[in-house]
This record gives sequence, structure tokens and C-alpha cells, in this order.
Amino acid sequence: MKFIREPIVRLIAVTHFSKPTDLDEFNLWQTDTDNPAQQLIEAAGRTCYRSWHNPSGRTNQQYIANLMSQGHLSVIEHASASFYIRGISRACSHEIVRHRHFSYSQLSTRFVDESESDFILPDAIADDAQAMEAFTQAVTVAQEAYRKIYERLRDKFANVEDRTLRRKLARQAARMVLPHALETALVMTGNFRAWRHFIRMRATEHADVEIRKVAIAVLEQLQQVAPAVFGDFTIKTLDGGVTVAEPAFLYE
Amino acid sequence: MKFIREPIVRLIAVTHFSKPTDLDEFNLWQTDTDNPAQQLIEAAGRTCYRSWHNPSGRTNQQYIANLMSQGHLSVIEHASASFYIRGISRACSHEIVRHRHFSYSQLSTRFVDESESDFILPDAIADDAQAMEAFTQAVTVAQEAYRKIYERLRDKFANVEDRTLRRKLARQAARMVLPHALETALVMTGNFRAWRHFIRMRATEHADVEIRKVAIAVLEQLQQVAPAVFGDFTIKTLDGGVTVAEPAFLYE
Amino acid sequence: MKFIREPIVRLIAVTHFSKPTDLDEFNLWQTDTDNPAQQLIEAAGRTCYRSWHNPSGRTNQQYIANLMSQGHLSVIEHASASFYIRGISRACSHEIVRHRHFSYSQLSTRFVDESESDFILPDAIADDAQAMEAFTQAVTVAQEAYRKIYERLRDKFANVEDRTLRRKLARQAARMVLPHALETALVMTGNFRAWRHFIRMRATEHADVEIRKVAIAVLEQLQQVAPAVFGDFTIKTLDGGVTVAEPAFLYE
Amino acid sequence: MKFIREPIVRLIAVTHFSKPTDLDEFNLWQTDTDNPAQQLIEAAGRTCYRSWHNPSGRTNQQYIANLMSQGHLSVIEHASASFYIRGISRACSHEIVRHRHFSYSQLSTRFVDESESDFILPDAIADDAQAMEAFTQAVTVAQEAYRKIYERLRDKFANVEDRTLRRKLARQAARMVLPHALETALVMTGNFRAWRHFIRMRATEHADVEIRKVAIAVLEQLQQVAPAVFGDFTIKTLDGGVTVAEPAFLYE
Repeated sequence: MKFIREPIVRLIAVTHFSKPTDLDEFNLWQTDTDNPAQQLIEAAGRTCYRSWHNPSGRTNQQYIANLMSQGHLSVIEHASASFYIRGISRACSHEIVRHRHFSYSQLSTRFVDESESDFILPDAIADDAQAMEAFTQAVTVAQEAYRKIYERLRDKFANVEDRTLRRKLARQAARMVLPHALETALVMTGNFRAWRHFIRMRATEHADVEIRKVAIAVLEQLQQVAPAVFGDFTIKTLDGGVTVAEPAFLYE
Repeated sequence: MKFIREPIVRLIAVTHFSKPTDLDEFNLWQTDTDNPAQQLIEAAGRTCYRSWHNPSGRTNQQYIANLMSQGHLSVIEHASASFYIRGISRACSHEIVRHRHFSYSQLSTRFVDESESDFILPDAIADDAQAMEAFTQAVTVAQEAYRKIYERLRDKFANVEDRTLRRKLARQAARMVLPHALETALVMTGNFRAWRHFIRMRATEHADVEIRKVAIAVLEQLQQVAPAVFGDFTIKTLDGGVTVAEPAFLYE
Repeated sequence: MKFIREPIVRLIAVTHFSKPTDLDEFNLWQTDTDNPAQQLIEAAGRTCYRSWHNPSGRTNQQYIANLMSQGHLSVIEHASASFYIRGISRACSHEIVRHRHFSYSQLSTRFVDESESDFILPDAIADDAQAMEAFTQAVTVAQEAYRKIYERLRDKFANVEDRTLRRKLARQAARMVLPHALETALVMTGNFRAWRHFIRMRATEHADVEIRKVAIAVLEQLQQVAPAVFGDFTIKTLDGGVTVAEPAFLYE
Repeated sequence: MKFIREPIVRLIAVTHFSKPTDLDEFNLWQTDTDNPAQQLIEAAGRTCYRSWHNPSGRTNQQYIANLMSQGHLSVIEHASASFYIRGISRACSHEIVRHRHFSYSQLSTRFVDESESDFILPDAIADDAQAMEAFTQAVTVAQEAYRKIYERLRDKFANVEDRTLRRKLARQAARMVLPHALETALVMTGNFRAWRHFIRMRATEHADVEIRKVAIAVLEQLQQVAPAVFGDFTIKTLDGGVTVAEPAFLYE
């Protein structure tokens, strides 16, 4: 067992556009970007207005900014991004999965052995010796209880023929003693509109510490990947040391 | 602290139809049921086919069965049901909220004091003395640690002026030691199609014990409320004592 | 054939709450409203905060206003409303069904005979004699063509044994000549949050005439049904005679 | 004006995976495919089971097939695909946009001039001289009426200062005479699970001719892009010359 202080958040997938070579409208169309996600968004916008000839002479960045400023946010739904997230607690993941416009694949406590797993240690607890002592004792006792219960129940269910089912029956009961601090891992995928909403809701002072860190890490990577879509968010650190982000375009 | 063995699942709301009095089609239409949810479903179906005169002479039950047998399930989306669910663990609620077609309002561990809360005790643990001892010790130590950490952090954040924020900062850190067995409560709302899917996925032998009990309790109540929609599910008890349910109409 | 000038919009269903009689928290809880949808919303809110004893002494109206002002909009998702909508064109319905959080049952042009159907006449056309003449001729020629094509194809597909399939094959081809002005009918169901979004997007000056009329009619009825949820919208008539609505609570 | 007989369906974007270089689990993991969408799906699955070391020694194709055969379909949600679709009627697009799990950007009849637009000609009509004559006359009269009404209303709204709004007011009224055969164009994006559902529902004998052609064209391209996900569908031509597709894995 070790204690984890910071989430790991890695962009692992993003939408790639490829231009059809045999259609007049796409041959007519010229854009100044080679950003694969932003090309798709511009193409989607130009489909709505049949404006492949770019009558206003806008750059890709200007074109997307113009759509967004008019509240025409649906075009950014065509691009999506996937993150691999680890080093967060199951308290945090329980909040994350409440966002219903995303797809999730999460480490299963029913299938996976958690007897050597790690735990998330909140800064507020780490900074206080007595809190830290209580925390350490609680997670240690919990993980020992997990091992003990798992062992007992695996024997109890020894008559269940299917080995995977036998373990699952034991683990799903044993996991009940595991603390919310238990580390989890997940892959989380959503389109750019969903990510904007997630960031707006979670990169604020009012959000829980862990989910805010995730939201900021997501934003930093998406600003690299699609500056025209996420560039209006400003990241800043408040007096208490809390990092938050705020969008210029309010609607998502 | 007490240990809870069975979930509490109560239907608290359902859709009520009321017939417009000034439209020819509704005046022409006659149905043999006074079930308020099933009337709405029939009306939705007859809107698609402009068949208010009931050319096939079907009862409401027959009409709905006929739509469902043709895979025309979207009509049952018009009726929805809300359940108040308590006596389940946060391990269970973490699985429940993965169902993205529902609306949830769940007891917040960030806002609410959990120092006197109860815990879910799995049957498999209760049946084994040594597992039970480990379980009892773990949850007891955890709740004591929760109280201790909360007390320390409330003092630490004493300089935070907003009383609600101060408590939230302390509770969101302290909750990290609470076990997954912690009782939670939620209101869960979904349309009949979403409920059929939930039941089909969760009232099976492969599901976790708690969520299966919830699914069966939901089904029993929905079969009272809308027999034409949920009547095809058969509830049965398997050899090991596990209660499951299976639909006759496979698609949802 | 006749020409239709105004949509018909009728509330036909809404969520009804019924209080469980055997649970302490519900017995403790007292509210000052008998509004069945608003009771459910308050109960959902109190589930989150375990505040059944109403520590702030709020009325139901105040309680819901407080949640909404904090952006805690998810609680209003538990209540839903269904409308029967007729007297709109298929141009309008094509826009309506783009709202993905609703459930729809719409009159099918593949299954239903449209040879005697009516058409929506826009005010702007009705007010101009020459536009009116062109409109009348176009829809008349179109409906005659529909009848002719249907007749020819029904004969052509005479060898198809299934009578419903035979008609469907003929109608799905024949409908291609029908104008977008063709009247349609649908049942549309969504939760209160989805309806707030629909109204905010569609009851504005920028929206199409027909869909704006639908949004205003929906709002007027929902303000009766759930004043605490929709009461912040102000309906007003602009200089050009256009009726619009604007919310006080911006986020939905 | 010209008549269009076949839809144009082009894959324009798909999800690209890129492996993080600094995480133990991803360094441990080896897969036999360089397919960027399928790599992501495997990584999502291995996140659930913490099985980066591939204990069963499965190929990527076998791994995905195994997940799908167990009904664990959520993993294929992480990959998405976008299609540019043209040469379909607005009758067809009205059906397409009923699929609520997709994102759409569609050519706007409110913003775009349709006075020179093309129309979809159904095979059943093209094959019958009298039906063809009625069809040709109807769409010709309709487009002439569109031009006439647009001209009248543009003058009528001459006092509206905003040029875009002036045109929009005229076009949204004038479009009411346009037939359902009017060609439209759209960009349609969805994850692989949504596409499987779309294909299963629309590549059948019961579907409308146009939407079935779209579904088959989508499937053919997705089978190239992600054979492990779409390879179980069999495309075949029925006696009447209708091309359909059927999946081996029933659940989506």
C-alpha cells in the first residue's frame, strides 16, 4: 500500500479528420489549419451553411470562434477526446460518473483483487499529524479486513464451479470494507461540448479538490489539442493556492 | 451505527395522463383502461398511426403488447417512474449511477454529517463469524477515524468564513476513510424503457447482490403500476436462493 | 385540404408524487404545497441534504427557487411533462426532434395516408396575395401528385402479399412530393430541465415562427402546472408582434 | 435542378489512439494491432480488469470479440466515427435525426438558398412513367413557387435591417412549399455502439429505402476501419434486390 497525492491524467485518443478526395465541396474548401479535430468542426459548420468557399474569409480559429459566440455549440460535438485517469479515489470517480454524456470504462472492484491497492491521501489530511494517524490506521485496518473477508468467502464459495464467479462473489462482499480513498482507474471519453461542460462545472472553487485537479489537467491537454475550442478558458491560481478555470463563452 | 440487511425501495411518483376535452381525435378514442400511464402510451401509439378509432378493436393491454412485440418500444418512454431508494451501500450506488438514462438526486457525503450513519452488511459476511468480526472492526475504526478527521479539519478550516463551505472542506476529506458499505439514499427517475433496461441488466444472476435486490423490488412495484409494460417479466427464485427476473420481450 | 394557421399544443401528462407512508423521513417532512410535481422535486432535494426537518423553514416555492439559484438544476429532472402537438408542419417537427433529451411519437408518413391531409400556412405568405397564390398552387399540385403516385405504386407492388408492407412501399415513395408544410402530429415528453432548455432556445426572436409558438404555448401551460419551476420566465410581445419568453435563471 | 438516385456517404473522421509513454501499465501492455480505434477499445477493456499483461494471450481481435460476446459493449463507445452524408432527402434526414445518440450538423433550409437545389428520385417512381411525370411536375412547380415566394417576402421584409435575418424570414416561409424529396447534407457523428444500433435498426428489410442505403454504406466503411467491432455483420442481397445486413452479436 502506498499513498497517492496527485491524479494521473493522460489524453489517449482524439478525433482525426480525413478529407474526402472525390467531392466538389471538399475540393473547393481550403482551411489554414492542419489540426485534425478543428478541421472536422469547420467542415461540420460549413455543411450547415453550404459555405465551402469561405465567403467571409475567416481562418479556422476565427470561424470556430464565430460559431461559438453565436451559441452554435453543437458543431464541437463532432470531435471527441479520451483520457486515461488514475490516482483518483472512488469518492472522486463516484462524482465523475454522474456526468451522463461521457462513456466510461472503470476498474472493477468486483473483478479485481484490491488486497495490494493504493489509496488517495487528501492534502488536508496529510498536513495534520493527528488526522494523518487516524487516516493511516483506518485504511490499514480496512485493507487487512478486506484480505481476511476475501479469504473466508473464497473458501465459503469453494463449491461454486466457475472460478471467475467464485472470486467475484467473494470480492463483491469483501470490497464493502474498503474506504472511499481506494485508488481507481478509468478511461473517460466525451465530445468537446461535454468536456467544456465538465470543465466549467468542475474546475471551480466549489468543486471537490480531486475532481478539480482532474478538470484542470484535462483542460491543459485539450488546450493543446484544440486551442480554438478550449482557448477561451483562463486558468488561474486563487489566494488559497487553489487552481481554477473559467470560460469566456458561457454556454455549453 | 447499525447494520442494514435489506434495501428500502419505494415508488414515489409516476406519470399521470389527462385527456384533452376539446380535440376530435381524443373524443373519438375510447380505451378500456383507467391506468394513467398506460393510457398515455396508447395515445402516443395512436398518434403515430392516426388510429384513434381503434380499427383492430384491441384492448389497451393488447395494443401495448402488439407495439412491444414489433419492437416499437419508444412509446413506453412517455411514462416515467421515480423511486426513493435507501438501505443500499455506496458500492451499490456507484454501480447504479452508471445507468445514464436516469436522473438522480443522491445524499451528498460532502454536505452531510456521516458520523452516525449506518452500514450495509452483506449476507455472505453476516453468515461467517470471522468475516463478520473483521467487517465490524473495520467499519467501527473507519467511523471513528471519520469523526476524528472531521473534528481536526473543521478546526483547521476555522478561518473559512462561510460555515457551509467550512464543513464541506472538512467532510470531503474525512469521507475518504468511510467504507463502501456506508448507507446512501437516492431518488432515481427514469422512463419505462430505461427501467426495463435496468431490470433486464440487473435482475440477473450475474449482477451484484444489492443491485439485484433493488431491481427486483423496482420490478415488483412497476408490475402493479403498469402491468401491460412490465407484465412479461417473470420473477423466479433459483436453487441458491437468488431471486432473478427475465423478460419475454427481449429488446428494450 | 385546409390551411392551418396556429399550432394546437395540449398538456396531456405530468408526474404525480405520492408520499410513502411507512418511512420516518417522509413522516417527518412537511411541505406547504399540494402540487404533485413540486412535492417530488422538494423530496429529491431533501434527499441530497437529509434536510427533511426543513431547517431553514422554507416554503416549497422558496426551496425550489433556492436550489435553482445555486445551479442545482438536476432536481427538476425528476418531474416530466408530455404534450400532444398538432397543427405544425413537418419543417417544424424536423427542428423539434433535434432536441435529443425528449421522447417522441410522431405521425408516420410511411404508414398513414396523406391524400386528404392539411397544410400549415405561414402568416407571411397569407399576408401576400401573390405568395399565397404560389403557395396554394404548389400544395395542390403536390397533393394531387401524391395521390397519383400512390395509386400507381400500390398497383405496381400488388404482388407484395403483406397489405401493410404494400401500402408502406407505395407511401414512402409517394410522400417525397409532399411539401414541408404538411401537417404533422406528435406526442413529446421530457423532464422539466429539458423543457426549460427547449423554451430558452426556442421562445426567442431568433427561432422559427412555428417552433416559437409551440415553445410559448408549452411555457404557458407549464407555468400553471409548476409555477416554482417555470415562474421565472417572462412572456412578452415585441414591437413587431412577436411573442417571446426569457428566463431569470440562465442555466438549464 | 437534377434528380439524385444514390446517397453519398463518406467517412470523414475516426478516433485515433496514442499510447502514453510514461506509465507502467501501458509499457507492459503489448497488442498485435496498429488499428488506432481498436487499440483504444482494448486499452479501455484492460483498464476494467487490470489485465495489461494479457493473461489469456488474446489477439486484439479475440479480445474485443470476447468482450462483445459477454455483452460488455460499453468499451466500444470510446471510439467514434463521423460521416458526411449527401444525396438524401429531407424525408430521410427527418428519420435519421430521430437517433438521439448522435451529433448532427445539417444543411439549414432557413439559412441557405434552395432555389437551385436538387431532389431525390425514388427508384419506385423512376420505374413508372406516370408516377415519374407526376413527380417531375410536382417538384418543378414547388421550386418555382419557392422562388416566387422568396422574392415576394424578401421585398416584404425589406425594412428588416439585418440582411441575414431578412433572408432567413423569407426562406423559412418559402421553404414550406419545398417537397420532402429536397436534397440535404449532414455530418453525423456517433460512437461505435451507436453506429451498431443504427445499422441494426436501419439495414433491415423493414427500413425505408434511403436510410437502408445509408446504413449499408456506413457499415461497409466501418468494417474497413474497425473489423473487430463491425466484422460480425453479414451483408446480403435479398431476392427483390434489396441489400440488408445482420449482426451476429445481437445486443448493442
